[in-house]
Amino acid sequence: MKVKVIVTPKETVLDPQGAAVREAMQHLGFDAAQAVRIGRYLEIDLEGDAVVHEPKLRELCRDLLSNPVIEDYRIEMPNEKK
Amino acid sequence: MKVKVIVTPKETVLDPQGAAVREAMQHLGFDAAQAVRIGRYLEIDLEGDAVVHEPKLRELCRDLLSNPVIEDYRIEMPNEKK
Repeated sequence: MKVKVIVTPKETVLDPQGAAVREAMQHLGFDAAQAVRIGRYLEIDLEGDAVVHEPKLRELCRDLLSNPVIEDYRIEMPNEKK
Repeated sequence: MKVKVIVTPKETVLDPQGAAVREAMQHLGFDAAQAVRIGRYLEIDLEGDAVVHEPKLRELCRDLLSNPVIEDYRIEMPNEKK
């Protein structure tokens, strides 16, 4: 069962990597890009029921996969059976 | 209009970062994680119609946002109106 975790910089936090990509896009003639924000995308293969593992996974997201001071995370369960 | 681009390592390519996270998860008592793969997640604010910009965006994904030798990308349009 595949669970996706997406970690993004908080809205209020500057994202220099995203700003650099936006500038590169504009430099390459793509002026339609107003803003770019870059985060991490994780695909986790879970054994068993994803719902059972969710609390522990959420704990790991906070402690291991994201920096809660500057980043948000969200978990996407398959089919959103919650 | 927000378009999402997800860049992931190809299935056949080793993902040492993902392997390290899987090991860290198991070390922290989360044995259910069988495999972890890590990619990049981009949120691009586009001015105007996303469908109009798609060909150029696809070109940029190939040339700027991903390394086509070892990475795949996919574009998620809002509401998938394609």
